[in-house]
This record gives sequence, structure tokens and C-alpha cells, in this order.
Amino acid sequence: MGQLRCDPVGGRWVIVAAERGARPGDSRRGARVPKGGFCPFCEGNEDRTPPEILAYRNDGLPADGPGWRVRVVPNKYPALQSEGDPEQRDYGVYEVRNGIGAHEVFIESPKHVLSPTELPADDLKEVMWAYQDRMRELKNDKRLIYALVFKNVGESGGASVEHTHSQLICTPVMPKRVQEEMANCEEFFKSEGRCLLCEIVAHELRERERVIVESDRFVALAPYASRFPFEMWILPKGHASHFEETPRDALDEFAGVLHEALLRLDASLEQPPYNYLLHTGPLTRAPVDYYHWHVEVIPRVTSVAGFEWGTGFYINPVAPETAAECMRNVVLEEAREHALGRGGAL
Amino acid sequence: MGQLRCDPVGGRWVIVAAERGARPGDSRRGARVPKGGFCPFCEGNEDRTPPEILAYRNDGLPADGPGWRVRVVPNKYPALQSEGDPEQRDYGVYEVRNGIGAHEVFIESPKHVLSPTELPADDLKEVMWAYQDRMRELKNDKRLIYALVFKNVGESGGASVEHTHSQLICTPVMPKRVQEEMANCEEFFKSEGRCLLCEIVAHELRERERVIVESDRFVALAPYASRFPFEMWILPKGHASHFEETPRDALDEFAGVLHEALLRLDASLEQPPYNYLLHTGPLTRAPVDYYHWHVEVIPRVTSVAGFEWGTGFYINPVAPETAAECMRNVVLEEAREHALGRGGAL
Repeated sequence: MGQLRCDPVGGRWVIVAAERGARPGDSRRGARVPKGGFCPFCEGNEDRTPPEILAYRNDGLPADGPGWRVRVVPNKYPALQSEGDPEQRDYGVYEVRNGIGAHEVFIESPKHVLSPTELPADDLKEVMWAYQDRMRELKNDKRLIYALVFKNVGESGGASVEHTHSQLICTPVMPKRVQEEMANCEEFFKSEGRCLLCEIVAHELRERERVIVESDRFVALAPYASRFPFEMWILPKGHASHFEETPRDALDEFAGVLHEALLRLDASLEQPPYNYLLHTGPLTRAPVDYYHWHVEVIPRVTSVAGFEWGTGFYINPVAPETAAECMRNVVLEEAREHALGRGGAL
Repeated sequence: MGQLRCDPVGGRWVIVAAERGARPGDSRRGARVPKGGFCPFCEGNEDRTPPEILAYRNDGLPADGPGWRVRVVPNKYPALQSEGDPEQRDYGVYEVRNGIGAHEVFIESPKHVLSPTELPADDLKEVMWAYQDRMRELKNDKRLIYALVFKNVGESGGASVEHTHSQLICTPVMPKRVQEEMANCEEFFKSEGRCLLCEIVAHELRERERVIVESDRFVALAPYASRFPFEMWILPKGHASHFEETPRDALDEFAGVLHEALLRLDASLEQPPYNYLLHTGPLTRAPVDYYHWHVEVIPRVTSVAGFEWGTGFYINPVAPETAAECMRNVVLEEAREHALGRGGAL
């Protein structure tokens, strides 16, 4: 089992998961499945993953066989594992815990496509349902504090399997980044009496120059202080702290906005590597007035180097206004057709 | 001029430096100087950089010509610039400042080598002196709060020029990471009456399993909660909050430990891309009891992906104890000979 170790200087936890790397010199993550080689995520290869936790499949078909649309399985190389005691121990000046938690993989399609944009927009709805279903289920394990849903696309985005998939890692401690966001939002709420992210949504819908996609209930925008070129945040317009509380019809609408935003990104930067991640309230807490869930999309087209590691600040060579305009100018129907063509649907 | 924009949700500043990228789609930093092509940092090409700020050269030789050993010039594509007013303005819910500061390049050798390990260890001493001289000088500009010294090595380490060099960026705001470290260290000092990093040094020198290099006054170790495989921190054993206060003979000793640590890293992972960065007290503050300067060396052999961006936590597939042992086991004389051979000195 791995360990969770706390760095008391930086105030962050590190998962030391020695079994994930083979040899010390061979520590590069990713590329476990060679490009164009055998794919354990394709329909028909269900026996090459651990048994499924959840799948949406046609009625009457047995588990761990074909006929599914979205399939959730434990990560074969988990960063954190479900068995064990989360007790915290001191080791001199340090803190350490057993590496308990959960690590799940969401296989987003039975077909071997590299991106959700290569599938019809409707196919993304059930992926969002699966995130929600798993988060609701994991709330029952009282050892777990937070569920982070994320997606890695492309080799330099950290993807080890190219077949379109996303992941969920549950931690027994609050993630530093979410804790910081919640603290900043709570402070704003206390002084201004409003949710900071509601305020940002209102500001951006007034200004419009950083808006990329908009629907009745959601908006995708280039954040004012974007860390990366073409960074996007997708948020509900109305206040909501917990993703898993989203009604299903709103979730379907969200899937549509996410799909369109990714299409506009893919068309603008020619399918860049990227990560997305879902920031939502912790599993252990009831909905709050001051925090607001959102998805952050991080294109990996600039390097993070000494300055960023040293400061926690970023240098962004593309103004968010320029990126938003570029993505708004994408001709959607053309982009959709090209992407479906890459996915083999046309 | 660029802008410094603050993200109120994450509490971080971003330098939006639109002039650093060429076109929106061409936003990849780095690789401005093609490999094996013309090198503006080599001796004889002094007219291809902005005029030097500082150089150590033989007596009587004119500035911006040959005969130097270490040369400091302004970055030709600065992230922050020295002219302007650092005044902070509100823009709706956001804060923004002019992108003022400083951005300097330390050319570490007149010879076209890729790494300080390809030069004799003694050559690194004057690089450390140059860091110190520049930091002392920049203290006089009262608009500047912090000077971050860092080094990017290798294309995936973010280096845009292969000729061995490091950089300094001065910011008019406190870096988030340093602020966090100082806050954690101050809290520890208040409750325990000791410097946290002094305590860590003492713990590691007792345990020894994470020690990589040791001299009279310095130690290089694999931190207990290393974020990355083969991460190293190099610290003075005795308490010291500000790098620029280090006496010159101690600084020379530090250069030797840094050189040996980098040699052991290069030999263990076959010259990996890496970053190093210097964390020290801010320019504006007198020495303090609770903070302790150190250099963090971050090998870039694992990818930072959705989990890391979402949580601020890291997954490290190599135990720091294993990495330290591997680096201790490097036969130093062999490694030195190979590195000097690569640099053309043998």
C-alpha cells in the first residue's frame, strides 16, 4: 500500500505509491499502453480490466461483457486503495497516513476514440451521470473526504491510455487547492454577502469578452487571470456548491456546453493535450452558500518551469480575451464534422 | 507592458505577457533558439543579447565583449519590465497591476555546454556570487518585493536556450508558494520555538536514509514528502533565512554541494530535464528566525496532470529513500569524468 506523506513546509500531501513505477530510473508515468497496440478499454476486452463498479448497458446483458455505453472500473494501478485504516501518525516533524482512498476509471465510450469531441455530444451526458452516481455512492464511505474527477488527454497531458477516459481519486484529506478556493470564497462571502463565483459569472456575462459558450444554465469562459493559454472554466450560472446535487436535465445541458467548449478548444489548437478537473464541495459537507462548483480545462501548450514551481504564479503569453475570441470564432458545424470524422463516425 | 492579474478564487497572480507568445495558436514557450543553431549566449556573440547588467571578466576588458566567465543580461523577452508604476487597481471583482519587476538571465559559462555539471565544480561558484550580487542590488528598488532565482534545463524543463543559464524574476507581490512556506514555518516557530527547516535538517541528519550529499555547512536531501522522483532540497545546516547574506566562503562550499548533487542526479537519470529554484526571504524583509533558505531541485520525469492540478497534491512513484540511495551509490569520479567529457573539457 502507498503512503500519504505531508510536507510541513509547503502544507501539501504527497502520495508515495512506489508500486506505480517500475524501477527508479524508469519513473516516467504514462505510455503503459503503446499507441495503436492492444486496448484494454475497448468493447470486447472487458476481462482485461478489474471487474466493473458501474456500467450503463442495455437491459439484461451481464456485467463485464459487451453492450455498455459507459463503464467504470477500478484503476489497475491505483494511487490510493480502499482497504485500510486512515489513521494519521507522526514521524518526527512529519505526518503520515496509509494511502487509503479510491481510484476509478470512467471509460467514456466502447469505441476506440481519443476524445469526447469525436463522439456525438449526447454521448457525454451519461459520462456526467456516471460521475454523479459514483460521487453519491462514495459519500457513504465516511473515511473519504473528497472526490476529484479529472481527465488527462494526450501523452503530455499525462494520459497513459489513449482511449477516451476520465478518472476519480478519492482522498482521506482535503485537497489543498480546493481548501484554498473554499477559504477565499468564504472570506469573500463574509465581507460581501455574495458568492465570489456567482459574482464572477455576473461580471463576465456583463463584459462578454471572455465568454466562450453560453446556455440557459451554464457558461464557459476564459478566466480573467487564466494561468494557461486557452484555459476555460465552465460553471453553472445559478448558485450550486455540489456537482452531485445537479438535477439530471441540467446535467445534460452541462454536458452539451462542455462538449461544445472542448470542440472549440480542439479546433483552435488542433487537438492539444489538456486536463480537465471538477472542483466541487467535499463529500463530507452539506451544500454551502459561498462555494460554487466548476470545471477547469487546462490546455497543456506551455511549459510549467522554475518560475511557476517557485512562485505558484504563472506566465501566460496569450491574453484570455484573445483566446476567448479565437474560440468563439470557430465555426461549430465544421469543427463538429472534422471531429466526428477523426472518430470514424462519418 | 504585461499585466499582473489576480485570480481571487485561487489567490494567485498571473503575468499576462502577450508579447512573449507570437500568435494565439503558437503559444508554446521555449525552443526560440534551434538546437545546434546560432547561440546568442556563447562568447563572441555578446552583441546579440541586451547590454550586460553584470559580468565577471578579466581586468581591463570592455563590457559586452569577450573575456567573461559569468554574464548577466536582461531577458530579451521579459515577463516583467522595470519601467512603470506598480499601483494596484480594481477591475470589478478582480485586481490588476502593471507588469513591473525585473527579468534577468545568468549566462553561466562562455562555453556552449548544456549543464553546470559539464564544467569544473569551481565554475559554479561565481554563478552563486552573481545571484547574490544581483539580489543585493535589486533590494534598492523599493517597488520589488521578491527575487526568485531559478534554472530550467532541457526542453521539457522549459528551457528555450540550451546554453547553460539561469534566471531571476523580481515580482512586486509576494509569491504564493513562499508566502505559504513562510506562514507554515512561522506557525511552527510560534508553537515549537524552533525553525521548522532546522528541525527537518536535524531529523534527516539523524535518520540519514534521505541524505544525498553532505558538507560541513550544507546538506542535499530527498525530502520526506518529495513531490517528484529524485526531488532534492539543498539547505544550510545552520539557520539562515536570506541567501544573499551567506558569506562568500560558505557560498563557495554551497556551490560544491549543488554541483555534486546535480552530478549525482544527472548520472542516476541520464541527464534528465529539471528545474531548480531558490526559496529565500523576501527582498523587503530583514533576516527572520523562522524561515530558512533552500534550493529545490525538481526533475521533470513524471507528468503533472489532472490530479495534481485539481488537488495541489502529487503522486510520486519512487520513494525518496530509494532515490536518495540510488544517488548516493553513484560513483562520483566516473560521473564527473563522463560529464566533463560531454562538455568537451576532456
